[in-house]
Amino acid sequence: MPANRPLRTRFLSAERAARMIMHQGLAACLERLATYLVEDCRRWPEFDKTPRVASHSADGVIELMPISDHDLYAFKYVNGHPKNHRLGLSTVMAFGVLADVESGMPMLVSELTLTTALRTAAMSAVAARALARPNCRRMALIGNGAQSEFQAVAFNRLLGIDEFHLFDTDPAATAKLQHNLIRLGLVAHHFASTREAVRGCDIVTTATADKTNATILTPDMVEPGMHLNAIGGDCPGKTELHRGVLEMGKVFVEYEAQTRIEGELQQMPADFAVTELWQVLTGQLGGRSAADEVTIFDSVGFALEDYSALRFMRDLAIELGVDEEIALIPDLPDPKNLFGLIAGEGQAVRGSASAPAEDSGVPVAA
Amino acid sequence: MPANRPLRTRFLSAERAARMIMHQGLAACLERLATYLVEDCRRWPEFDKTPRVASHSADGVIELMPISDHDLYAFKYVNGHPKNHRLGLSTVMAFGVLADVESGMPMLVSELTLTTALRTAAMSAVAARALARPNCRRMALIGNGAQSEFQAVAFNRLLGIDEFHLFDTDPAATAKLQHNLIRLGLVAHHFASTREAVRGCDIVTTATADKTNATILTPDMVEPGMHLNAIGGDCPGKTELHRGVLEMGKVFVEYEAQTRIEGELQQMPADFAVTELWQVLTGQLGGRSAADEVTIFDSVGFALEDYSALRFMRDLAIELGVDEEIALIPDLPDPKNLFGLIAGEGQAVRGSASAPAEDSGVPVAA
Repeated sequence: MPANRPLRTRFLSAERAARMIMHQGLAACLERLATYLVEDCRRWPEFDKTPRVASHSADGVIELMPISDHDLYAFKYVNGHPKNHRLGLSTVMAFGVLADVESGMPMLVSELTLTTALRTAAMSAVAARALARPNCRRMALIGNGAQSEFQAVAFNRLLGIDEFHLFDTDPAATAKLQHNLIRLGLVAHHFASTREAVRGCDIVTTATADKTNATILTPDMVEPGMHLNAIGGDCPGKTELHRGVLEMGKVFVEYEAQTRIEGELQQMPADFAVTELWQVLTGQLGGRSAADEVTIFDSVGFALEDYSALRFMRDLAIELGVDEEIALIPDLPDPKNLFGLIAGEGQAVRGSASAPAEDSGVPVAA
Repeated sequence: MPANRPLRTRFLSAERAARMIMHQGLAACLERLATYLVEDCRRWPEFDKTPRVASHSADGVIELMPISDHDLYAFKYVNGHPKNHRLGLSTVMAFGVLADVESGMPMLVSELTLTTALRTAAMSAVAARALARPNCRRMALIGNGAQSEFQAVAFNRLLGIDEFHLFDTDPAATAKLQHNLIRLGLVAHHFASTREAVRGCDIVTTATADKTNATILTPDMVEPGMHLNAIGGDCPGKTELHRGVLEMGKVFVEYEAQTRIEGELQQMPADFAVTELWQVLTGQLGGRSAADEVTIFDSVGFALEDYSALRFMRDLAIELGVDEEIALIPDLPDPKNLFGLIAGEGQAVRGSASAPAEDSGVPVAA
């Protein structure tokens, strides 16, 4: 970074990010984001990884998810508040930052509510492409909330899934999803229960929001060869699968240390065997070993995926000429003279709290 | 929060924060911030506390510092890169967020580079007011970088210190500090060594930046009754005091779990006795027990201080009518329909990566 460059941080608002994604097309974005995810997962050993830092309260959780390699540091702020729709707010809201490791300078602040939905769906599809049987056509979507359309579009684009079986305890959510999928030219049927929805499906995606130990899926519903994409069980006390389901197949995770705390895995003993997905993506370990084997992606969302997503959004912004910036860091002629930033000529050390500094010459409010 | 309120996050840029502080006067801001710090320290048991999460690299560190009570969640992003001045950048750059615990909504994004300088100085003065001898007049400032003027103004305002003894290995830094202090009407003398600067002082503030185990202060320099305000030793491998100095007096810390990792305390055995400052501020424990006792504030900077600082800046912004906002979180008519944000009429699921969505109607770039 040249020494005389103004210290501006690139900013992507929620609206700007949405426009960028609309401009490129959602499916194309998911496909490209998948290449970023695979690229970064293959560099797994280069990253400084840590389980996210969670702050739990009565109604939800707020988390910070940092990660870095030698060049870039990224973190995401994200909440999970299942009752938020009653306030007219999203269950999950997020933003994130990319910073330069060499200097610590924050280079990008970006919305990540929409972007998280993309990266979660792209990651699910990357995992399923590596783990599910070839030629999958039909997927059940259990939980038809904010994440569901993204899952459908990602699985359509990356795996060719073109028939979706829908179920949610809230019929309005299912109606919304079905409407959106049909508008996209996809086949979507709704069912009266999870049991009916999953029957005959190649892949089952669970993406429910309740912060509770639910048993959305029980062993008797699971068919030989199914791939289970378990998205919703992602914090302590929040699971979706009966523990018997986990014993039916081979379990894959993003980052074992975090998934043991937050994933479906929290129900299992500490030595329950799992495989980290990056090892499959690099070819170090195998994925599915037989067509009738059950494979389970116990997904909780890991900081590396947000690193990839932030990198993708930054590159897209540069390509599209989006250059909005915010002045998050002061621009100092002499970095050791931070005081110079507020050293107005007339400033009195002992001035009273209510007296404005003399002759500051700059209005305080916009 | 009313359901139909646009989801805007208040934003304080570095320039805006500087204007607000100039408008109020630095000394008045430090004094008021000190009341916020004392208020929040006295509520210590109400906070969900955790040591900060640090990511170390060859040239520095990037940290996230979260904390929350029942109503507000706060975190700070901050780096420490001692060589940054060579790039024309500050050693320490920071920003932070206040969020609503009930919903997870981020309510404020604020610069914290300047604000951290204020809160560190205000915290030092709060500690010294509780721990130093009464009627202190003379303070040594060892390390004359970005933090030093703020320390001087805080100690002048809150303790009545009006004579400052300066030393830094960089004479230009000392010249800058002396110039700034004299302009503020304070008495400031420079010295050729730490030993000469500290002689006869009531308080010694060390605020040096080198990421190394330095011994800025050795036992033979410490006089009976001195209060030591040790600011610069604040991450593993970065200390300022000879361990013998810590054995000469009573050591006070912000948050023991963090200071054992990051403070001067990292040199001492795990059972070396310390007192958390909040216990002195609530009156639960005593501070100094004799006029000739040496007291040491082993300060590393704790998340609660940033919580207080963010609360202070938010209140000041509201009072001054500063209402700049950023659209960090998407505003959705139906929070379960995140997809609606990007569902342009003409959007094709299978559109190519380069083809723009038909009829999006909104330019991508500004």
